[in-house]
Amino acid sequence: MEQISGVINESCIPYSEFKNNVGKVVSIKGAIHNIRDMSDFAFIIVRTARELIQCVYSPEFSEYRKDENVVEQAAAKLTGLVVKSETRDGSERYELQIHNIEILSKPVAIPPVVISKKQINCDLSVNLDNRPVTLRNPKERAIFKIQEGIQRGFREYLTTQGFTEVHTPKINFAGAEGGTNVFNLDYFGKKVYLAQSPQLYKQALVPVYERVFEIAPVFRAEHHDTSRHLNEYISMDFEMGYIESFTDIMNMETGVLKYIMNLLKTEYAPEIDLLKVVVPEIDTIPCIRFKDAKELCVKKLKNITDMKDFEPEEEAFLGKWAKQQYNSDFLFVTHYLSKKRPFYTMDDPEDPEVTLSFDLLFRGIEITSGGQRVHDYDMQVEKMKKLGMNPEEFETYLMLHKYGAPPHGGLGLGLERLTMHLLGFKNVRNAAMFPRDINRVSP
Amino acid sequence: MEQISGVINESCIPYSEFKNNVGKVVSIKGAIHNIRDMSDFAFIIVRTARELIQCVYSPEFSEYRKDENVVEQAAAKLTGLVVKSETRDGSERYELQIHNIEILSKPVAIPPVVISKKQINCDLSVNLDNRPVTLRNPKERAIFKIQEGIQRGFREYLTTQGFTEVHTPKINFAGAEGGTNVFNLDYFGKKVYLAQSPQLYKQALVPVYERVFEIAPVFRAEHHDTSRHLNEYISMDFEMGYIESFTDIMNMETGVLKYIMNLLKTEYAPEIDLLKVVVPEIDTIPCIRFKDAKELCVKKLKNITDMKDFEPEEEAFLGKWAKQQYNSDFLFVTHYLSKKRPFYTMDDPEDPEVTLSFDLLFRGIEITSGGQRVHDYDMQVEKMKKLGMNPEEFETYLMLHKYGAPPHGGLGLGLERLTMHLLGFKNVRNAAMFPRDINRVSP
Repeated sequence: MEQISGVINESCIPYSEFKNNVGKVVSIKGAIHNIRDMSDFAFIIVRTARELIQCVYSPEFSEYRKDENVVEQAAAKLTGLVVKSETRDGSERYELQIHNIEILSKPVAIPPVVISKKQINCDLSVNLDNRPVTLRNPKERAIFKIQEGIQRGFREYLTTQGFTEVHTPKINFAGAEGGTNVFNLDYFGKKVYLAQSPQLYKQALVPVYERVFEIAPVFRAEHHDTSRHLNEYISMDFEMGYIESFTDIMNMETGVLKYIMNLLKTEYAPEIDLLKVVVPEIDTIPCIRFKDAKELCVKKLKNITDMKDFEPEEEAFLGKWAKQQYNSDFLFVTHYLSKKRPFYTMDDPEDPEVTLSFDLLFRGIEITSGGQRVHDYDMQVEKMKKLGMNPEEFETYLMLHKYGAPPHGGLGLGLERLTMHLLGFKNVRNAAMFPRDINRVSP
Repeated sequence: MEQISGVINESCIPYSEFKNNVGKVVSIKGAIHNIRDMSDFAFIIVRTARELIQCVYSPEFSEYRKDENVVEQAAAKLTGLVVKSETRDGSERYELQIHNIEILSKPVAIPPVVISKKQINCDLSVNLDNRPVTLRNPKERAIFKIQEGIQRGFREYLTTQGFTEVHTPKINFAGAEGGTNVFNLDYFGKKVYLAQSPQLYKQALVPVYERVFEIAPVFRAEHHDTSRHLNEYISMDFEMGYIESFTDIMNMETGVLKYIMNLLKTEYAPEIDLLKVVVPEIDTIPCIRFKDAKELCVKKLKNITDMKDFEPEEEAFLGKWAKQQYNSDFLFVTHYLSKKRPFYTMDDPEDPEVTLSFDLLFRGIEITSGGQRVHDYDMQVEKMKKLGMNPEEFETYLMLHKYGAPPHGGLGLGLERLTMHLLGFKNVRNAAMFPRDINRVSP
């Protein structure tokens, strides 16, 4: 009887082991990413999970010089001698003098988009149509490795802060934040909805675990086709109980962001370097009231008509202002108008026209909405009625308040949007692995 | 200008700090879980995120003896003296002699289900109808804390093994594994589907990152209402490239399970103890071919008619057999019949009637299906045709093979189902926070 031990006997070494194997014959596995034929020898660039390894294929080392199976995108096992080489900047680099190439699998066609160059040079729509191939380009895949780092940082930091990770249902009996912009689903003859936010569930879990977070897809049936909206995206949400003020939530987010940026700089350095990302330094994040921010905008910008919310150019201006005044890439704007925030937002007891809420601007663009929530049953029912909502339709949600909830609040952070702004993209689709928009559900 | 530093100034201490504060006056925050009135004093049990803290409320320490606001499910801040008390088993325990109770919020009704007893004693359907309340019971919430541990262990182990965490779209243009059992969605007038598996996406990402995993909801429109099916559940999937044999996948899973079980025993000990979970010890996992396992079943069990698959009683028998013969709670069954596995499964080159696939049985119940996938384009197209599928409908999927894919394979593991079997539940709904079945989409 065969027994499975849990240990894989690797016959190959990773690139990180090259430095300990100079002068030795080793094997590596990877995709043949690029072949640069130099007539009497060739460079074969092998793509592994995070590196490109330069291998030299020459009659001096090997007899396999003109093997027709050695083509780009073939999967291969290469055996050869590790040698140290100098780079122009003097840093250490290692390469493999190939003795033997074993082809593990072969493509049957040449990719429709060139992926072996430094970057993909085609229209975004062509890139997206060919995602299974274009993501193989090192710069393309680096985007989503960094995205992994962002969500990993969010999770790791909150775990150290006593949060519990939860998974809440995406098939919902009612839209979380009103009935607009939700996708309808036929569920065994019943009409149900796809979650546009875990809001009501994460609040329900505050009396259970005090602090919870979720990283999961949400779905928004927005009919407009813009450069910053997706119809499905990954929402990073947290909700925390027993807060003493809504500042606690902003502090938690500041801690999260500091942790993420540090993680990116350390464990994601290869990708950060490759994409030349300027990772923001965070010391403290300044904080301004909506009213005061609006006054600043009115003073500096022309043609401001909407006094209840910001236009994108106002957010951009505030971003620059925070950078100039406080050398901060981030700015919290607080106390948004009550009529502009969802029904579960806590009004400021000192001025019920405004709320204990905030947005976070990153380089002049909103990446978070958050705030304190109503925890008192009577207050929530009254607020719903004032907004023309029927509390009976929210009976399950209101169990939270009816049977006791601590003061609490939280926020949501769109993963693709944060990635987009960190990497300086103009279009959120660049930061979505397989974006869904009004015209695209494939691949 | 206020500056947010990222540090929350806590006025309260967690229970873990009690041992360092004996004889000192401290504050704690939590829900009043249970009040046991002993006539001349009362025990107030305070529920925090993971503990129940015993507090003593007596005229000796405080004037607040008969405060009508002090009710079960109120959120409170309690201040008092930390004292050490002995438990019957001699272990250390600490309690709080209450000086003052500040009520932070109050419920307006008594919960419809008693949650302050050791366990919830009501029908499962009543429990599920009242989830926002019943989850507050320490045994109920412990289930999902353990569930957090399982998915966390899956993630942490794979991260150490060079895997990249990915998020693939849940709105799909085609059902991953054929057109049955998928939910249809109206997407701006187009008919699209909810993902029943990340299969095709995770395979597409193997040539990108070599090793990927995803923990995310999947949706299955199964019309039957059984104790082991959910219509939405969390699937833990991984896929790994450059495997030398499909045994590599079983080894990776064995490593994952060892790590998870160890994590549960250490970091989730309070919940493991509370629910009296017998965490399996894993040394090695035995491995038997489907054909040989079937022979064992035929010898020992009566009335076996289906020779192509297992009935639940056969799996149960095999589970007992593995326990008796190898003292293992787990058993890999390999080489399932080709006609019983999905189109992307690699046939055994030595016997094309069977596949390089496996199921993992845990205590006699299947928790994983996995195996090696076809990576060669011509082989996959031919297999599709043989199965009556139209390769043209899978053009995007086949980009993976057409443009080169290494030998690879992977598996899927249902989070709720693993939780269910680990905890010994008869019904998977007990292991789903907000289960979705043919009759339930609420709360």
